[in-house]
Amino acid sequence: MRIEADCIGELAVPDDALYGIHTLRAVHNFPISTELMHPLIIQSLVQIKKAAASVNAAAGTLTSAKAQAIIAACNQLLLGRYADNFIVPAIQGGAGTSANMNVNEVVANLAHQLVPAVTVHPNDDVNQSQSTNDTFPTAGKMALQIQLPGLLTALSRLVQTLLVKSQRYQDAIKVGRTQLEDAVPTTYGRTFHAYYQLFKRDLSRIRQAGEQLQLVNLGGTAIGTGINATATYQQQILQQLQRNTGLTLVAADDLIDATQNCDLFVAFSAAMKTLAVDLSKFSNDLRLLASGPQAGFGELNLPAQQAGSSIMPGKINPVIPEVVNQVAFEVMGNDTTVTMAAEAGQLELNAFEPIMLRALLASEAHLQHAIETLVDHCVRQLTVNRERCADQVAHSAITATVLAPYLGYEMTTTLIKEALAAHQAIPALLRQRELLPEALTDQLFSPTGLMQPRMAQTPPLNVAAK
Amino acid sequence: MRIEADCIGELAVPDDALYGIHTLRAVHNFPISTELMHPLIIQSLVQIKKAAASVNAAAGTLTSAKAQAIIAACNQLLLGRYADNFIVPAIQGGAGTSANMNVNEVVANLAHQLVPAVTVHPNDDVNQSQSTNDTFPTAGKMALQIQLPGLLTALSRLVQTLLVKSQRYQDAIKVGRTQLEDAVPTTYGRTFHAYYQLFKRDLSRIRQAGEQLQLVNLGGTAIGTGINATATYQQQILQQLQRNTGLTLVAADDLIDATQNCDLFVAFSAAMKTLAVDLSKFSNDLRLLASGPQAGFGELNLPAQQAGSSIMPGKINPVIPEVVNQVAFEVMGNDTTVTMAAEAGQLELNAFEPIMLRALLASEAHLQHAIETLVDHCVRQLTVNRERCADQVAHSAITATVLAPYLGYEMTTTLIKEALAAHQAIPALLRQRELLPEALTDQLFSPTGLMQPRMAQTPPLNVAAK
Amino acid sequence: MRIEADCIGELAVPDDALYGIHTLRAVHNFPISTELMHPLIIQSLVQIKKAAASVNAAAGTLTSAKAQAIIAACNQLLLGRYADNFIVPAIQGGAGTSANMNVNEVVANLAHQLVPAVTVHPNDDVNQSQSTNDTFPTAGKMALQIQLPGLLTALSRLVQTLLVKSQRYQDAIKVGRTQLEDAVPTTYGRTFHAYYQLFKRDLSRIRQAGEQLQLVNLGGTAIGTGINATATYQQQILQQLQRNTGLTLVAADDLIDATQNCDLFVAFSAAMKTLAVDLSKFSNDLRLLASGPQAGFGELNLPAQQAGSSIMPGKINPVIPEVVNQVAFEVMGNDTTVTMAAEAGQLELNAFEPIMLRALLASEAHLQHAIETLVDHCVRQLTVNRERCADQVAHSAITATVLAPYLGYEMTTTLIKEALAAHQAIPALLRQRELLPEALTDQLFSPTGLMQPRMAQTPPLNVAAK
Amino acid sequence: MRIEADCIGELAVPDDALYGIHTLRAVHNFPISTELMHPLIIQSLVQIKKAAASVNAAAGTLTSAKAQAIIAACNQLLLGRYADNFIVPAIQGGAGTSANMNVNEVVANLAHQLVPAVTVHPNDDVNQSQSTNDTFPTAGKMALQIQLPGLLTALSRLVQTLLVKSQRYQDAIKVGRTQLEDAVPTTYGRTFHAYYQLFKRDLSRIRQAGEQLQLVNLGGTAIGTGINATATYQQQILQQLQRNTGLTLVAADDLIDATQNCDLFVAFSAAMKTLAVDLSKFSNDLRLLASGPQAGFGELNLPAQQAGSSIMPGKINPVIPEVVNQVAFEVMGNDTTVTMAAEAGQLELNAFEPIMLRALLASEAHLQHAIETLVDHCVRQLTVNRERCADQVAHSAITATVLAPYLGYEMTTTLIKEALAAHQAIPALLRQRELLPEALTDQLFSPTGLMQPRMAQTPPLNVAAK
Repeated sequence: MRIEADCIGELAVPDDALYGIHTLRAVHNFPISTELMHPLIIQSLVQIKKAAASVNAAAGTLTSAKAQAIIAACNQLLLGRYADNFIVPAIQGGAGTSANMNVNEVVANLAHQLVPAVTVHPNDDVNQSQSTNDTFPTAGKMALQIQLPGLLTALSRLVQTLLVKSQRYQDAIKVGRTQLEDAVPTTYGRTFHAYYQLFKRDLSRIRQAGEQLQLVNLGGTAIGTGINATATYQQQILQQLQRNTGLTLVAADDLIDATQNCDLFVAFSAAMKTLAVDLSKFSNDLRLLASGPQAGFGELNLPAQQAGSSIMPGKINPVIPEVVNQVAFEVMGNDTTVTMAAEAGQLELNAFEPIMLRALLASEAHLQHAIETLVDHCVRQLTVNRERCADQVAHSAITATVLAPYLGYEMTTTLIKEALAAHQAIPALLRQRELLPEALTDQLFSPTGLMQPRMAQTPPLNVAAK
Repeated sequence: MRIEADCIGELAVPDDALYGIHTLRAVHNFPISTELMHPLIIQSLVQIKKAAASVNAAAGTLTSAKAQAIIAACNQLLLGRYADNFIVPAIQGGAGTSANMNVNEVVANLAHQLVPAVTVHPNDDVNQSQSTNDTFPTAGKMALQIQLPGLLTALSRLVQTLLVKSQRYQDAIKVGRTQLEDAVPTTYGRTFHAYYQLFKRDLSRIRQAGEQLQLVNLGGTAIGTGINATATYQQQILQQLQRNTGLTLVAADDLIDATQNCDLFVAFSAAMKTLAVDLSKFSNDLRLLASGPQAGFGELNLPAQQAGSSIMPGKINPVIPEVVNQVAFEVMGNDTTVTMAAEAGQLELNAFEPIMLRALLASEAHLQHAIETLVDHCVRQLTVNRERCADQVAHSAITATVLAPYLGYEMTTTLIKEALAAHQAIPALLRQRELLPEALTDQLFSPTGLMQPRMAQTPPLNVAAK
Repeated sequence: MRIEADCIGELAVPDDALYGIHTLRAVHNFPISTELMHPLIIQSLVQIKKAAASVNAAAGTLTSAKAQAIIAACNQLLLGRYADNFIVPAIQGGAGTSANMNVNEVVANLAHQLVPAVTVHPNDDVNQSQSTNDTFPTAGKMALQIQLPGLLTALSRLVQTLLVKSQRYQDAIKVGRTQLEDAVPTTYGRTFHAYYQLFKRDLSRIRQAGEQLQLVNLGGTAIGTGINATATYQQQILQQLQRNTGLTLVAADDLIDATQNCDLFVAFSAAMKTLAVDLSKFSNDLRLLASGPQAGFGELNLPAQQAGSSIMPGKINPVIPEVVNQVAFEVMGNDTTVTMAAEAGQLELNAFEPIMLRALLASEAHLQHAIETLVDHCVRQLTVNRERCADQVAHSAITATVLAPYLGYEMTTTLIKEALAAHQAIPALLRQRELLPEALTDQLFSPTGLMQPRMAQTPPLNVAAK
Repeated sequence: MRIEADCIGELAVPDDALYGIHTLRAVHNFPISTELMHPLIIQSLVQIKKAAASVNAAAGTLTSAKAQAIIAACNQLLLGRYADNFIVPAIQGGAGTSANMNVNEVVANLAHQLVPAVTVHPNDDVNQSQSTNDTFPTAGKMALQIQLPGLLTALSRLVQTLLVKSQRYQDAIKVGRTQLEDAVPTTYGRTFHAYYQLFKRDLSRIRQAGEQLQLVNLGGTAIGTGINATATYQQQILQQLQRNTGLTLVAADDLIDATQNCDLFVAFSAAMKTLAVDLSKFSNDLRLLASGPQAGFGELNLPAQQAGSSIMPGKINPVIPEVVNQVAFEVMGNDTTVTMAAEAGQLELNAFEPIMLRALLASEAHLQHAIETLVDHCVRQLTVNRERCADQVAHSAITATVLAPYLGYEMTTTLIKEALAAHQAIPALLRQRELLPEALTDQLFSPTGLMQPRMAQTPPLNVAAK
C-alpha cells in the first residue's frame, strides 16, 4: 500500500492501483450499490483527456513530453485495458467529480508508468483546462450519442417491419373496436399502418431530441466562464475531440447556460418516454388481439418463444410484448427521476447529473434491446387469423352503422337491437324486411362500403328507405 | 318537462332546455365535480358543426334549409349565447361522446327554434359525416391552438425581459456557486443571459410541439376509415373550418393512426413539463438569491408585492416565484395524467381524451398566467444588490482557482486554507508572500482575469512562481 | 372605493367589500385561473377565527366585546353568507397568507359592521395568537377531514356491493386468465371476492392515512415555537375548535416538525393513489370482461347508461368504468404534484401547501364521486353471462392442467396440443385414449376437481396412467 | 452440447450447464441488459423448492428419494455454489416463469448429479404443487423481507443520531426561515428534533408497509385456486418455509386476490417514496444551511469527505447529501415504475412483477445505503457554527414580531422598516424611543421571550406602549 494525501488527509492506496486517493474517497463515500460508473462515460472522459492533452500542448501550456505520455495512456485505456481501475460508483455525489478524478488519476499514473521519465499530475496536467463541470456532462452526452444509433436502428427496423406487415395484411378485414366494444370494420393492413406511422413519429422525435445532445459545454470549465482554460484550448478542443471520436460535438452558444441547465436531458428523456408510452400501447394491443387461444380475441398469432407456465402445460404467453411493457414502465420511471433531478439544479450547476445520466443511458439501451426483441421475436413472425377476423365482421351488428345515412340513426338503432336479439346478420334482416334496394345493401356491406367514405351522390337520408 | 327517449329508455328534459336526453344522461352518469367541459372545446365543436353543415350541403347530403338553420344556430352559440345549455362535465366517460352530443342537441334544438319550419336531427343532421371520435379530439386540438399564442407571447416576454436584465447587469460581478458552495466569479449579466437562452429553447420546443397539434383526424369519423362521411366532405371540411376560424388545421396522413394514438398530446405535455422544470429551477434560484434580508444570500431584490405574513410584521416573501413553482408542480402532475391516459388507449381509440385535454388545457393556461405574473410582478422590477455581490467576490477565497495554472493545484489548495484560516484576502496573501509578480496578480484578480479563459502565452505551470 | 394601505403602499377597495387590501393584492398577484380557494378551507379558517376569539378572550388578551363581535361575524359566514367576499385564488404564492388574510379582513370588517361600536383589527384581533403557518395547514387538514367520510362511505359501499356480487355468482364458473391467455378455471364468485378483499384493504389504508390528518400544528404560530400565542391559547384552542366543529383534532407532539414537514400529505396522497391504481385495474378488467357484444370476451353485461356513439347506432360503451379510469389518472397526477411540492419544502416551512391541498381535496372528492357512480351505475346492476362463461370452460384445453400430476407435464403438453389441433374437448380425448380411469376423469373435470387443491391420497405421478 | 426439447422445439444446452432449455429461451428472448435476476429472489425460490420437497414428500405425492435429492441440491445452492447457473435476466417477460424454471432446472439437474440413482423432473417434481404465479411473488416478498431489517436499522440510526444532535444543540439559537426569508428565531435543538420526529414517522410507515409483505399467496398455484397442490401441501408449506428461513410468512386470506393484486407493492413503494421525499428535503436543508464558506448561509459545518473539485482547489462540497438526493430521485422514479406496472395488471395475474420487484429491491437497498452514508459520513460529524447563528439572530429585524401583541401589527411594521433602513438592532431602537418598559424589552428579546408562547397575563395590545 502506498500513502496518498489530499486536502482532507491521508489514505492507503493499493500499490498496483492506477487510481488514487480521490477515487478511493468516492468508493468509501458512495456505497449505494455495486453498479460502477457507466463504461461509456469513462471511455468518453478518457477521450476528452486525450484530446485535451493534444490541444494543451498546442497551446503551449503542457509540455510535449507530458502530452505524449497522457495520449499513450489514453490509447491503452481506449483499448479496454486497465478497466478494473475505474471503480467509482454510478450513483455518486459531487456532480461527477469522482468519475473525473478517477480518470485523471488513472491516466496520470499510467502515463508515468508508460513513460517513467515524465511525471504527470492528475489535476494540473491531465485535467488541464478542464473541470468536472464541463467534462462530465460532455462525456455523458458523448455516451448517449454513442448509444443513440443503436436505438434509432432498432426503431427503424420496427417501422419497416410494420410497413411490411401492413402490406401483407392489406385486405385482412377485421372488427374495429372503440372503447373495447365492437365498432365498424377495418383491416389489419390499416392497423399495422397506424402503428407504422406512430413509430415513424417516434423515430423523428428521438432523432431530433438526440441531436440536441451534440451541444456541449466543454471549454466552459468550472461554471462556463472558461476560467483556467486558454482561448486556444476553447477554440480547438471540440475539433480535436471530434477528429478522435467521429462524434459530432458543437459548442453551446452560452457556456454558462449549458453548464447549469439540464433541459436537453429532460427533453431527450421525454422523447424516450413518449416512445415508451407508444410501445406500451402497442404491446397492450398485441397481447389483447392475441388473447385466447379459446376464450379470447384470437385474432393474432404471436410466435411461441418459450413455454408459458411451469404448471399449465402447453400454455404460451405473449412474453415478448410483456418484456416491452416492463421496459416502458422502467423508462417512465426513469423520466420521473430525470425530471426531479433536473428541477433540483441550483444556480451555476446541476449537481445531480450522475443520476440523470444513469437513468438516460439505461432508458436508451433498454429501449433499443426491447425493440430488437420485439421485432425479431414477435412482430416479424406474427400472423393474422384471417378467417376468424372475417367471420367476426360478418356477425357484427355494428356494421349496420353504414345504414344510418339511409335509414337514420334511430331506425338503425332499432334494427341493430332486433338483429342482436334474433342472432341474425344485418344484411339478411335488411333483405327480409326489404328496407333497401338489394344492390345498395350489397354495396354497403362490401368491404369498400364498410370501410370507406360513401359516394357523395348517394341519396339523402331516408330517401332510399321509401 | 318534455319526455325524450334513447336506446336506454325515457327521461324528462326541462321544457326550455336546448340540450336533450343524451346530455342529461351524462350529467347523471358523471357527477365527478362541478367543472364543466372546457368552453373552448364546446366552442370548437360548434365551429365543426357549422363547417360540417356547409360542406354537407355542398356535398348534397344535407338540405340547404337544414344547413342554414344549423349555421344560424352555431352563429348564435359562437356569440356566447345559450351558454348555460352546455352542462356536460369536464371529466366524463365515453371518449367525449357526451360533449359532442350536448353540442349536437343544442344546435339541433336551437336550429329548429330559430327556423321552426325545419326539423333538425342531432345525429343525422348536425353530426352528419362526423363521429365523436374525430370531432372531439379535433375540437381539443383547436382549443389548445386557441390558447397557444397566449403562452408563446408570455414566454417571449420573459425571454425579452431576461435579455434586458442581462444587459443592465452585464458588469455586476458576483460569486458563482456550484453545489451551493462558493465557486469562481461570474456576473449577473451572464446569469440572466443563461436563463434567457434556456427559455428561448423552451419557446422553440413549445412552438414545435404546438405546431404538431395542427394535425387532426377530422373526416375519419368512427375509427379513421371515414365511414358515413362523403369524399366531398373529407376534401372540404378542413378548408371550411380554417376559413371560419382562422386556425391552421391539417389532415393527418393516416386517419386511423390519428384517431387512436395520442403521442402528440404526450409530446406537447412533455414540452410543457420541460418548461415547468425550467421555470421551477429559475424560481428556486430567484428565491434563494433574494433570501434574507439579513440572514440570507441577499443578492437580488425582488419587488415587494404584498405583506408576507399575518403574524410577522414587515416580512416580504417571494410570492410570485412561489406561485410559479406551484404551477410547475401542477404541470408535472398533469404530465403524469396525460402519460397514464395515453398509455391506456386501446386498439382503435383512446377513450381517455377528456382527462388528457383537461390536463393539457390547464397546463397551457396556467403556464401562461404564471409566466405573465412572473414577468410583470417580479422579473421586470427586480434589482441586483451590486455592492453586496462585489463585496462577496472580494472576500471569496475560491477566486484563488485562477492561480492553479501558475502555482499548481496543491499549492493553491494550501494557500486557500491559509487565507480562510487567517480571514485574509487572496491577493493580499499573495503579495505578502511574493509568490507571483505584482502585475500578474493584478491581472489575474481583475474581472477579466477571474472570468475569462487565460492567455495562451501565459507561462506554464510553476514557472511564474519560481 | 375606499383607500387602504399596507407596507407596500395604497390601493382602492370597493366600498361594499368586506375584504381589504391584502386580499386585493393576492387577486392581482395570482391570476393563474378563475378557481377560488376551496370553500372548505375558507370555512375551516373561519372556524379557527371563531374558536381563537373565544380562547383569546378567556386568556385575557382580547376584550370580550371584540371576541363577541368576531364570533358573531364568523357565525354569519358559517351560514354561507357573504361568501362572495372570499376571492383569493386557489393557486397562490405565499403559503396561504392570502387566504388567511382574506378571512381575517372579512371577519374584521363584518364584525365591525355587525357591532359598529367595536373596531376589530384583522391581524391584531382576528388573527391574534395565530399565523398563516399554523392556521392554513390546519384548515387544510380540517377540509380534508370534512370530505373524508364521504370517500370512506362510498368505498364501503363498493366493498359491500362486491361481497353481494361474489355471493350471487358463487358457482358461476369461468375461464381464469393469466397474461391474458386462457388459464385454469375459477368462478365469478371468487373473482368478485378478490376485488372485495382488495378494496377492503384500500378502505383500511385510506382510513389510517386519513386519521393522521387529525394531527395539526395550530398554536405553533409562525414556525412552531408558538411565538405571540399565549400558553392558555395553546392549551385550549383545539378543545374549543373540536367543540365547535365536531372534528377530531390533536396537537402534534413537535410543532416545529408539524409546521415544516408535509409527509402526512404525501402519505395520504399515496393511499389515494394506491386506491386509484386498484380502481383503474378493476375498471380495466370490467371493460375487458364486458367487451363485445360479438367480437369480445362477452362475459359480463354492464348496464347500459347512455347511447355510446354519435355515429354508430345502438353502440353501448362502458362509460362508467371509463370515467373511473380517468379519475384514477387524475389522482396519479395529483400524487406527482403533492410529491414534488412536498419535496420542495425548505427549512421551517413548506410554502407550497396551497397546491398540495388543491390536489388532495380534488383527489378525495373525485375518488368519492367516481366510486359512487361506479357502484350505482355499474357494479350493482351488472350481470354475468353464465352460459357463455361455462361454455368457454367446457372448451378450454388448458383445463388439462389438472392431469399433470397423473400424466406428467410433458405428456399433458402433448395431449393439449392434440386437443387444440383436433378441436376436441380434453375429457373426450382422455376417454377415447383410455388414459385414466373414467371415474377419475369425471372427478378431475368436475368444478371442484378443476378449482381446488387435489386430494393428498391421489396416486403419485404416472401411476394412474399405467 | 446436449439437446433439450420443449413445446417450441429443440435447443442445444452446454454439457456442463445445470440449467436447461427453458432458461436458455429466456436468455435469448430478454436481452434487455446484463443485469441478472436478483440473487435474493433466486435464493428465496430455492428455499421454496426445498420446503416444497419436504411437504410434498409428507403429502405422499413425491417419493422420499426424490425429495431428499432435491433438498440436497437446494442446500448446495443455498451455500452459494453453482451460482453462475442462474442466468435469466432481471427484466423478463412471462411473469417470472423464466426465473422459476431456471431454479427448477438447476435444482433438478443438480439433484440428479448429487444422487445419480434418482431422476428429478423440473416441473413434475421440483415445481410440484407450485406455479410461477405463487412462487415468484412469494420469493419477491421474501427478498424484500430479507433486505428490510437493513433499511429499518439504518433509519433507526438516523433517528437516534438526530436525537443526539438535537440534545447537543438544544440552546444553539438561530434564525428561523419561512419561504427562505428571515423569520422568528428557533434553535438547532428544535431543528434537529423536527427531523428526528419526521424520520420516526417514516420508520413507522416503512415498518408497517413492510409487515404487509409477509402476506403471501404460496399454495394458490396458477391463479389462487390451488389447483394441483394438495390440501396437505397448502396447510404445511408456509410453516416449513418459515422453519427453514426464519422469515415470517402468512397465507393471504384470499389466494385469488393475493395472486392478482399488487397493491401491497404499491403501498410499500409509496412508503419508500415518502421517505425519499423526506430525505431529499433534509438533504436540501443541510446543503443550504452549510452553503458558503463565505457567500452562503454558513450555519452548519458538514464534515469534509473528499476534495470537491478537479479545478477549484480547496473546494469542499456537500457530496453526501447530494448522493442522498440522487437516491431519492431514483426512488421516486421507481415508484412511478411500480405504479404503472401495478395498474397494468389484468384479470387473474399481474404479469409485470419482475419490473416491480426490481424497482422495489433497488429502492430498498439504495435507501439503506444512502442513509448509512448520510449518518456515518455527514450527520454524526456535522457541527453548528453557533456564533454565526447567534449573531444573525441579534441582527434580525424580524424578531420585532414579538412586539406585535404590545405595539400592534402596524406600528411594529413601521419600526422594522426603520430598523432595516438605519441598520439598527430592534432592542436598541426600542430603548431609544422608550416605547416599552426596559424590563419588558429585555424579557421579550431573551431567548425564551423570542421562542416561546408569551405569558397569558401580559397586558393587552398597546397598553404597554402607552
